Amino acid sequence: MTLFEEFESLLAEIRPVDRSMVPAVQAHLDDLTKPQGSLGRLEEIAMSFVLATGSTVPVLEKKKICCFAADHGVAAEGVSAFPAEVTPQMVYNMVGGGAAINVLSRHAGADLDVVDVGVNHDFPDTAGLVKRKVGKGSGNIACGPAMSEEEALQAFMHGTRLAREAASAGYHLLGTGEMGIANTTPATALYAVLLGIDPDTITGRGTGIDNARLEHKKDVIRKAIEVNRSYCATPLGTLRSLGGFEIVAIAGFVLGASSCRIPVVVDGFISSAGAVAAMKICPDIKDYLFFSHLSSEQGHKTVMHALGARPILDLDLRLGEGTGAALAMQVIEASVKLYRQMATFSSANISEKQHEGT
Amino acid sequence: MTLFEEFESLLAEIRPVDRSMVPAVQAHLDDLTKPQGSLGRLEEIAMSFVLATGSTVPVLEKKKICCFAADHGVAAEGVSAFPAEVTPQMVYNMVGGGAAINVLSRHAGADLDVVDVGVNHDFPDTAGLVKRKVGKGSGNIACGPAMSEEEALQAFMHGTRLAREAASAGYHLLGTGEMGIANTTPATALYAVLLGIDPDTITGRGTGIDNARLEHKKDVIRKAIEVNRSYCATPLGTLRSLGGFEIVAIAGFVLGASSCRIPVVVDGFISSAGAVAAMKICPDIKDYLFFSHLSSEQGHKTVMHALGARPILDLDLRLGEGTGAALAMQVIEASVKLYRQMATFSSANISEKQHEGT
Repeated sequence: MTLFEEFESLLAEIRPVDRSMVPAVQAHLDDLTKPQGSLGRLEEIAMSFVLATGSTVPVLEKKKICCFAADHGVAAEGVSAFPAEVTPQMVYNMVGGGAAINVLSRHAGADLDVVDVGVNHDFPDTAGLVKRKVGKGSGNIACGPAMSEEEALQAFMHGTRLAREAASAGYHLLGTGEMGIANTTPATALYAVLLGIDPDTITGRGTGIDNARLEHKKDVIRKAIEVNRSYCATPLGTLRSLGGFEIVAIAGFVLGASSCRIPVVVDGFISSAGAVAAMKICPDIKDYLFFSHLSSEQGHKTVMHALGARPILDLDLRLGEGTGAALAMQVIEASVKLYRQMATFSSANISEKQHEGT
Repeated sequence: MTLFEEFESLLAEIRPVDRSMVPAVQAHLDDLTKPQGSLGRLEEIAMSFVLATGSTVPVLEKKKICCFAADHGVAAEGVSAFPAEVTPQMVYNMVGGGAAINVLSRHAGADLDVVDVGVNHDFPDTAGLVKRKVGKGSGNIACGPAMSEEEALQAFMHGTRLAREAASAGYHLLGTGEMGIANTTPATALYAVLLGIDPDTITGRGTGIDNARLEHKKDVIRKAIEVNRSYCATPLGTLRSLGGFEIVAIAGFVLGASSCRIPVVVDGFISSAGAVAAMKICPDIKDYLFFSHLSSEQGHKTVMHALGARPILDLDLRLGEGTGAALAMQVIEASVKLYRQMATFSSANISEKQHEGT
C-alpha cells in the first residue's frame, strides 16, 4: 500500500458519532444527584466523551500525550525570540524529565512520548524518544513549500500510526503537544489560508518578540502565503507548503485517533493548527476533539471563535509542549468519573425539583 | 476565653504576606526552562502559594475540603427549586460517597469532611460526618436576623477550629464547600450589603427557578436587607443577620486557615460570600485565598469583578458542595509541582532568549 492509499483508507474509516445516543446519555446525566445542568461544561464533556467512544459505560484510565518536535527553515528569517538550537536542547530536556510537559503529564497520570519528526539534530537512541524523523527541519516557507508531498505524507502517517498504536495499546484518551522554535509562524500562515483570516490579525509574539520583530514576522507570513499560494488548493497541499513536520504529524495523529474512536485533547496555538487542517480534511473528526485551553498567543481566540469552539481552560498559557492538554485531561477525567460514579436520584432517595408554581 | 475573645485573638494572629520574597520567587520562575511568563496563571498561582506559605520550597501533598451544611428559615418563602428536606438527604448522599463532591475530591486526592453546622435533622454518628450543629436551621431572614450573636460566633469558631485542626494535622491546602437548600438567597443579601451592590442585579436562579419565582426571590432579598438593616453596621453583624450557619462557618474557616498560613480554595457563589465577609473582617487574608471558579450563578461575575479577582476555572458550574474547589486544587497542585520540579536554564544547558535586535 502506498502512503497515499494508506491515507485514503484512513479517511474511509472515520465515522461521525452516533447522535441517537444523546437522549439516553442526557437522561443519565439528569438522574445524577444534582440540579439539572448544574455541572455545566463537565456534563457537556461527559456527553462528548460518551459519543466519541460510543460507550455508555465510558472508561478513562490510560492517557498518553505525544509531543512532536521539529525544526523550521523559516527560523532563519528571525521570527522567534529563541535560536533554533533550542529545539534539540528542549527535546533533551523532555527526555530527561525536566520540561513543563514532564511535570504536567506526570501530574495528570498520562504517559508521554517525545517524537522527533524533524529536528535538525542527530539524537542517540534514548528511552522516551520516539524517532520518526522525516527530515532535518522543514524548508523556509518564506521561499517555497515547507516539504515535498512525499515528506508530508510521511509525517502525517507517522502521526496517524502513533495514534493507532496507542489505541491498540489500550489508551483511552490521547493528547497532542509540540516543540519547534519558530512554529507559531507556520501555524499562523496555516490558519490564515485554511480559515480565510487576515494573517496580520492573528500574528502574535510567540515566545516573546518585540514590536519590530512582530512587524517583520507579519511580513514573513504574508510572503510565505504569497509564495505558496499555488500549492494551497487542498488542505493537504496547504499543510505541506505552509506547515512544519510536527504540525503535519499532529494532523495525522488527530485523524488516526478519530479513526479508532479515541478522543484527542488538542493543546494550544500550534496543535490547533494541525487539528484545523485535519478538520478541513475530514470534518467528522470535530466530535472526537477537545480543545484544551485558550492560548494567550494572540490569534488563538480568533481561531477558536471561527471554529465555534470554547476551550476547556483559560490560563494564559503560551508554552505548547502539550501543557494545556495535560491540564485539560484532568478535567475530562473528572467529567467521566462524575458520569460513572455519582449516585442517581432514584438510588439515593433524594427529592427531585419541585414543580414550579406549587 | 469567651468566644469573642477567641475571635479577637484569631484576628491578631493573621499577618500580611511578606512581599519582599517576590523578586527571589520571580527569579526562580524565570529560570525555569520555558519562555518567561509562558506558564501564565500557573506562575501567578505558584507565586501566591509561596507567598501565602512563606516557604520557597513549597509542599503541597495533603489537601482537605470541608463541606459545611445547614438549613435556612428563608426556604419557607419558596425561594428555591428544591424542598428543604433535600439538605439532609444530600448530607446522607455525601456521607455515602455518591455526591459530585465525593467524586471530585477523590479525583483531586483531597480528603473530605462533611460538617453539619446547622441542618434541620438529627443525624446518627457516622464516619465522614463532623457534627458541629449550632441550631436546626437559621431563622427566616425575611422576618429578622438569621441567628443570635452567640450562635454566629459559635458557627464562626467551628469553622476556624476545623481549619486550625487541619493545619495541625499537616494539611497544606484547604478548600471550602457547602450544602443548604435556599442558600443563594442569604449569599446574595450578604453581597448586596457587604459590597454595596444592588441585589436585583445579582439575584440568580440558584438550582433552577423560573421567572416568577426569581422575581419573588428578589422581593424576599430586598425585604431581608430592609428588615435587618440595623444589624448590618459591622461585617460580623451583617453575617449574623443575613447569613446562614454554613456561610458564617466558611468565613471562620477561611480566617482560621489564613491565621496558620494555609492557603484556602474558595468554591463558588455561596462560599465566596463567606470569603467576602472574612475579607471585610480582615482584608489581609486576601493573599491566602484562591477563587476556584466563576459560577454560572448570575451574580458571581459581578462579585468577582468587585473584588478584582479572576477565578481559576470557568466551567459553568453552579452546584456548590466544593466541586469547583476540588477541580481548582489540581491546577494549584500543578503550579506548585512546576515550581518545584522543572529544570532550570542553567542546569539544563539551554540557550536563553536572544537579545532583541540582534
